[in-house]
Amino acid sequence: MKDKDQANLKIEKNKELTEKLVNIGNHVIAKLKSFQDPDVNIPVRTLSNVYFDEKARSLRLGNATSERSYFNLSQAKSFMQTMLVASKLREVIERGSPVGLRQLFYLSKGGIPGTKENTFDLQKECDPIVEDIEGLLKCLREEMGVEAERKGILCGDIKILDSGDEIDCSKQGSSGYGIPSIVEKGTVDFVDCKADYILVVEKGQTWSTLNHDKFWQKNNCLILTGKGQPARGDRRMLARLHRELDLPVYVFTDMDIWGYYIYSVYKQGSINLAHFSANAAVPDAKFLGFKMSDVEKYKIPKEHFIPMNKGDYKRIDEISKYDWFKEKKEWQQEFKDLVKFSNKIEQDALVGKGLDFMSRTYLPEKIKKRDWIE
Amino acid sequence: MKDKDQANLKIEKNKELTEKLVNIGNHVIAKLKSFQDPDVNIPVRTLSNVYFDEKARSLRLGNATSERSYFNLSQAKSFMQTMLVASKLREVIERGSPVGLRQLFYLSKGGIPGTKENTFDLQKECDPIVEDIEGLLKCLREEMGVEAERKGILCGDIKILDSGDEIDCSKQGSSGYGIPSIVEKGTVDFVDCKADYILVVEKGQTWSTLNHDKFWQKNNCLILTGKGQPARGDRRMLARLHRELDLPVYVFTDMDIWGYYIYSVYKQGSINLAHFSANAAVPDAKFLGFKMSDVEKYKIPKEHFIPMNKGDYKRIDEISKYDWFKEKKEWQQEFKDLVKFSNKIEQDALVGKGLDFMSRTYLPEKIKKRDWIE
Repeated sequence: MKDKDQANLKIEKNKELTEKLVNIGNHVIAKLKSFQDPDVNIPVRTLSNVYFDEKARSLRLGNATSERSYFNLSQAKSFMQTMLVASKLREVIERGSPVGLRQLFYLSKGGIPGTKENTFDLQKECDPIVEDIEGLLKCLREEMGVEAERKGILCGDIKILDSGDEIDCSKQGSSGYGIPSIVEKGTVDFVDCKADYILVVEKGQTWSTLNHDKFWQKNNCLILTGKGQPARGDRRMLARLHRELDLPVYVFTDMDIWGYYIYSVYKQGSINLAHFSANAAVPDAKFLGFKMSDVEKYKIPKEHFIPMNKGDYKRIDEISKYDWFKEKKEWQQEFKDLVKFSNKIEQDALVGKGLDFMSRTYLPEKIKKRDWIE
Repeated sequence: MKDKDQANLKIEKNKELTEKLVNIGNHVIAKLKSFQDPDVNIPVRTLSNVYFDEKARSLRLGNATSERSYFNLSQAKSFMQTMLVASKLREVIERGSPVGLRQLFYLSKGGIPGTKENTFDLQKECDPIVEDIEGLLKCLREEMGVEAERKGILCGDIKILDSGDEIDCSKQGSSGYGIPSIVEKGTVDFVDCKADYILVVEKGQTWSTLNHDKFWQKNNCLILTGKGQPARGDRRMLARLHRELDLPVYVFTDMDIWGYYIYSVYKQGSINLAHFSANAAVPDAKFLGFKMSDVEKYKIPKEHFIPMNKGDYKRIDEISKYDWFKEKKEWQQEFKDLVKFSNKIEQDALVGKGLDFMSRTYLPEKIKKRDWIE
């Protein structure tokens, strides 16, 4: 891919999205002209319409929609807000320049002439409208150019074309390639990749240690971190790398329920972003550790155990009942053992076994012996 | 600078630091051999020893020190902890591989044989010991290879040698160069810079918008953001860019007391890191905005005002009394006007004036007309 092709790809995508937005407007105008109530049908995003798709092995949004119409007193304001944000998104797409969620809020926030009413008072009214429009258009807000927080970092033998610049992620020093909020085709494209797999690590510090040790070079892999709970861009990036480059994914987190859940988010998606999960889940991702059997295998000293608290036990109980963990014997055993062990082990504790224990011993051994949970 | 020179620079620095650490150990051994109480003299970091240096125009640590000795019952544990962390830091330096603060805590955490006592129970016991050793060695923890959180991003016409890799910050797409935690000579060096000044912006989204608009190219500058309160690495990076490349610094924040304080941290340093400020302040930094006179000048619509709350007023009162704001008429006027205006304006609101208002109009005009506060 050349930078010109990348620009064209984006132009094509923008044309398609603009057309969809114009169609929504045309539908409303047609209704008005025939003296009917203008409306839109918004996919429902509440828990009742979220299900675990056994075949796709990830969270999905069902087919339920709810009508939002103009002549319904309780819906008139949100109908107006939907039209307003849709028209602002059209401007954003036309200019081809991304905006942040907060900026989009300000773009849409204004007085309504002749009233004391505002279109929007708070950003938390505006953000769900953006998600509504994602549903209406069956696209991601990132494709429309809406940015949010970014967190993750990537390194390894891959060349990325980012907004016309070719970036070699094997030559990014101690910094790495910072994963942007928008990593859609036309903004971020993969030019060339020689890596064999992707290692996902929970913590930024773990990434930093492995990057310093050139683990990615010695083991021919990419290393990605979302620094705790990953941002949307990090999850989407991982899914694209996995799908388009056919790279297996191994996840390495703390040995605690919060780490296990981070693995689950990369793998199946998250409940509150079910509509996003079809595009961002990696159902084949494997959990490398840190896991219960490692504690004895690698003789973690007692002083490095952290006692679990009430919140930890409660969360284990909740998560062990999730559809995608419920049927899995190995996971149920892991949860049971964790409760019995009643302690947590952090990635950072592994330096106690030697500064390069993770990169020289632990990780290569786990991968070689296929010592993971699916 | 070549990557070989960079490696040598680091070797030299590490040698110097190891020597200093060994000297501390030798001093303790000598005391023991002559049957005296082994001790170290730690610079005091509490408010009583922090002052605003009028000449250097930044926060400084005074000369007060406190003795920490082994034969003092209330100091024996922290003396032991100091020796322990110092010896672990020597290992870290010798290996030449950075560690995180949490990793360093685990390296130093262990049982004391024959007792039920731990060397460390919590990380918050360990972090101040690292700062003590910074004081003892008169160096930064970053020079010893201790990493912490990283946040900031940089773009513009500068080539950086980072751990042997040359990174062109004008070719980093939508990602930018992520500012590492450690940006000391020998890890991060400046190869070539063609920019005329540095624009510091408070928010990540503002950076993203300006980067997309190629503001840095059109105005021949670097753009740096610390995403709110900057990390140590961001402040140190800015100070080094300013001092070594002789680049003026302009800071652009929200129009609220929190934004003004972020400016103050970049400029004078922060009270709780006074010992770090000599290395990380930019006393010449200018405050570009957003400021009170801009509200009328750029006709910000009322709907984009955010009412101030109690916390805002209280903080204005505190900050206006700081030594470095106290004597400045222009700042006192700004604070007074802000209280009277009783509203805040965010950077994000400026999109209301047009998606490219910041990059085409506001920022170039401010800089051209020298419309800033010092």
